[in-house]
Amino acid sequence: MTKTNAGNFFEDFKVGQVLHHATPRTVTEGDVALYQALFGSRFSLQSSAEVARKAGYATAPVDDMLAFHIVFGKTVPDVSLNAVANLGYADCRFLKPVFPGDTLSSESKVIGLKENSNGETGVVYVRSTGRNQKGDIVLDYVRWVMVRKRHAASPAPEEDVPHLPAAVGAAHLAAPAGTSFKGFDTAASGSPHLWDDYEVAEKIDHVDGITIEEAEHMMATRLYQNTAKVHFNQYTEGKGRFGRRLIYGGHVISLARALSFNGLGNAVLVAAINGGRHVAPCFAGDTVFAWSEVLDKAEMKGRADLGALRIRTFATKDRPCGDFPGPKEKGYEDGVILDLDYWVLMPRR
Amino acid sequence: MTKTNAGNFFEDFKVGQVLHHATPRTVTEGDVALYQALFGSRFSLQSSAEVARKAGYATAPVDDMLAFHIVFGKTVPDVSLNAVANLGYADCRFLKPVFPGDTLSSESKVIGLKENSNGETGVVYVRSTGRNQKGDIVLDYVRWVMVRKRHAASPAPEEDVPHLPAAVGAAHLAAPAGTSFKGFDTAASGSPHLWDDYEVAEKIDHVDGITIEEAEHMMATRLYQNTAKVHFNQYTEGKGRFGRRLIYGGHVISLARALSFNGLGNAVLVAAINGGRHVAPCFAGDTVFAWSEVLDKAEMKGRADLGALRIRTFATKDRPCGDFPGPKEKGYEDGVILDLDYWVLMPRR
Amino acid sequence: MTKTNAGNFFEDFKVGQVLHHATPRTVTEGDVALYQALFGSRFSLQSSAEVARKAGYATAPVDDMLAFHIVFGKTVPDVSLNAVANLGYADCRFLKPVFPGDTLSSESKVIGLKENSNGETGVVYVRSTGRNQKGDIVLDYVRWVMVRKRHAASPAPEEDVPHLPAAVGAAHLAAPAGTSFKGFDTAASGSPHLWDDYEVAEKIDHVDGITIEEAEHMMATRLYQNTAKVHFNQYTEGKGRFGRRLIYGGHVISLARALSFNGLGNAVLVAAINGGRHVAPCFAGDTVFAWSEVLDKAEMKGRADLGALRIRTFATKDRPCGDFPGPKEKGYEDGVILDLDYWVLMPRR
Repeated sequence: MTKTNAGNFFEDFKVGQVLHHATPRTVTEGDVALYQALFGSRFSLQSSAEVARKAGYATAPVDDMLAFHIVFGKTVPDVSLNAVANLGYADCRFLKPVFPGDTLSSESKVIGLKENSNGETGVVYVRSTGRNQKGDIVLDYVRWVMVRKRHAASPAPEEDVPHLPAAVGAAHLAAPAGTSFKGFDTAASGSPHLWDDYEVAEKIDHVDGITIEEAEHMMATRLYQNTAKVHFNQYTEGKGRFGRRLIYGGHVISLARALSFNGLGNAVLVAAINGGRHVAPCFAGDTVFAWSEVLDKAEMKGRADLGALRIRTFATKDRPCGDFPGPKEKGYEDGVILDLDYWVLMPRR
Repeated sequence: MTKTNAGNFFEDFKVGQVLHHATPRTVTEGDVALYQALFGSRFSLQSSAEVARKAGYATAPVDDMLAFHIVFGKTVPDVSLNAVANLGYADCRFLKPVFPGDTLSSESKVIGLKENSNGETGVVYVRSTGRNQKGDIVLDYVRWVMVRKRHAASPAPEEDVPHLPAAVGAAHLAAPAGTSFKGFDTAASGSPHLWDDYEVAEKIDHVDGITIEEAEHMMATRLYQNTAKVHFNQYTEGKGRFGRRLIYGGHVISLARALSFNGLGNAVLVAAINGGRHVAPCFAGDTVFAWSEVLDKAEMKGRADLGALRIRTFATKDRPCGDFPGPKEKGYEDGVILDLDYWVLMPRR
Repeated sequence: MTKTNAGNFFEDFKVGQVLHHATPRTVTEGDVALYQALFGSRFSLQSSAEVARKAGYATAPVDDMLAFHIVFGKTVPDVSLNAVANLGYADCRFLKPVFPGDTLSSESKVIGLKENSNGETGVVYVRSTGRNQKGDIVLDYVRWVMVRKRHAASPAPEEDVPHLPAAVGAAHLAAPAGTSFKGFDTAASGSPHLWDDYEVAEKIDHVDGITIEEAEHMMATRLYQNTAKVHFNQYTEGKGRFGRRLIYGGHVISLARALSFNGLGNAVLVAAINGGRHVAPCFAGDTVFAWSEVLDKAEMKGRADLGALRIRTFATKDRPCGDFPGPKEKGYEDGVILDLDYWVLMPRR
């Protein structure tokens, strides 16, 4: 019997099954520095231990998306090694801050299965949960992927498609316990605009663009121990559909989030991801731009210091976003690569 | 009103104005490792906590230029986002060591203004100050940049050009308090040559060359949270003057400083930068070489263990420095990209 | 007299001579994160402080090969700056774990000399020893390199070729004191296969491939403060034998070790390197694959929790390893770049 991991095929998943993913991973200040170097984020809460302490944290929490990518990376060997496509995310909530020194581990529960009509693939729905060393859930989310069947002849499982919320309800967002953003220092953060200043339907062009290099996205994705083959192997991908290594979709999310600082500079925390679609592939050499629309605003229960903004951020490649490119009648305007719907938390006046 | 930062234009600066820059940044061992990986420095004081402790430090201080780049990076969004050119540095002093865990912040005071005769740009002089979390000044320096006017028709401010010293006087150099380099371990440092062994007018070819990649300079510059657009965006720069991303001048300074180890291996600290000029642009693919001349030697008041050397280091691209290429009648010899005049501290016999 | 290091030539080495190498280097969590980002390793003992603590460590030890590269890097300026070729390694033992915060230093003893018949080069054998700040030996190894003579006319030294073991005897392998891998968590490690499950002569294709970029191997090699010129300088190498920068052989070893996780996921420690040959050069753009054969199995004296596997790992470039490419009658099959013989330690049932 081979000792290498061939990954799970569609037949291997059963609704209710729990997958305990390897490998627990201790997050360090080294990871934080690399994340900084790769994305150039500037949100003051993650950048400065002093800002974090003033807000009641023991030290600076790590970027929410760094925690997400590490939790996500662990699911790949069990969930998506034989995936044809990552179809979507839903109901992702960030529940506890992650600090350097915390050890993250992941597990996934299969919550739905649906064979495709071609008999060759099926859709697997999992709820993945990231925990710290104390067992606290730091984040959880649903994703669904199209996975190859081992044998086309295998019988189809009973169709079981979970009901997923279109968005996380504002009442379900978690503000970090024991913190206060009252009197948040906007000179230090670099933006004078607080929650009160944003209007629903407001659009913000984040202006700047960042070109991605092969070394960068591979370093990022290895940092997360994400083993999806398409990101690393030019020998094989050179013969494949795109002729190139494909960039991990999460890399684009992190770039878009970092770019969004210019316009959303006080959006210190990501509280939830309502949904996300990687609309087109991204490759080394592409320059990523982003713009955002405010979809909704919500107060946070019991917190006069923080409010929530529901944001829809679009990222593009090789297309500045001054004209706000987004969906069109069918699909998306040229150059759009990411359509991300999420909640951020921002200090209030 | 847009919530994105358009940066300041020439009209926005007033002499005496103080700019409090975002974002405070906690320096970590992760930053130190990245700096090591990007430049390959080998000075033993920064490399080894044991060497640092023997010299009286609590632990290894971070590279002086890493601290400089972080302090500098913060000034970009307010000072040079609309800069046409970074014209020069002067009177930069390194006053306190920076350690992992320290949080750096920056502010700049406008100390001079001079509109250019074309009416479209002006020169802004600022003194920028980097402080740690205790409020101690860790370094400060003057730089002047040519900045676009918002409107050519705006009236010119009163011309006010500050008097700047040609060099920091040796009497104004700071040696780190509470340290002693007596009996400095030259086997550990890798060079037998101490302050006493250097002669004024001595020239040293640093021999080695290092080729720069796009991923490297972008990672470095994002690490410092320097947001100058020209370094990151191939889409826009591809249509621009050079057709390429321009490398942050400080990247070349750090490479030259790391290369200078071969010949100046005991120059453990940078005490001051007297002046620096980026003589020609540097791009990915260029191989950087360097050579130095000893301009001056000075004793340090109250310190028999340390002396100061005033060094002029030239960096070149794609040109080895065995023939010491430097200034010529008009401008510089081919390949020269950096002319840097600075003081280093070196243990004495 | 020049103050730059010209390195030692063959005439400079004497049998019995001890070289104290610069620069002591404090290993940090930043180094660990960079190593993770560059190689993507997933062995749970190094990845998780919690897994390490359960096994009796104070925290997660750093990857054995990271420690090796740092110790090796220090030897370059004194041993191999004028090397024509790195000919081999032998008798390398990993004796103590290295943790973030430890400061590593290296020394080498010349144990053999043999002038080549051409009179222009000679082979230098050194035993290099890496120590932590307490003076404990963390690893030591023999390597031999072909070094240029300063003058072809210099008289040849007496030939003195050391006797080197073909492999480290299993009785000489060191298991880390104070640890126990009893009940090792294989769900956390990601592989169900323990020492008991491997058979001598078993072959394992590690399946995955990773493409190397210039920025990556240069960052890695600078992280180790390895100054060998061929890795960094495209200006000079572009005119040289290969027309390209040559990748540090240790980079390929680290990639092969990381790839070997897929099939050897519980090989948590490298205990010894019996021998290694870099069979062909490796360049940026190459995609590295690997496969392994189990050469031997051994119990560890006094340890029912751990066993040793002697592994021979081959790495290839641009050639998947499903057909196990290795040595042929003369030399190696096309694409093979590394032939590495080493001992790993793996938990037992």
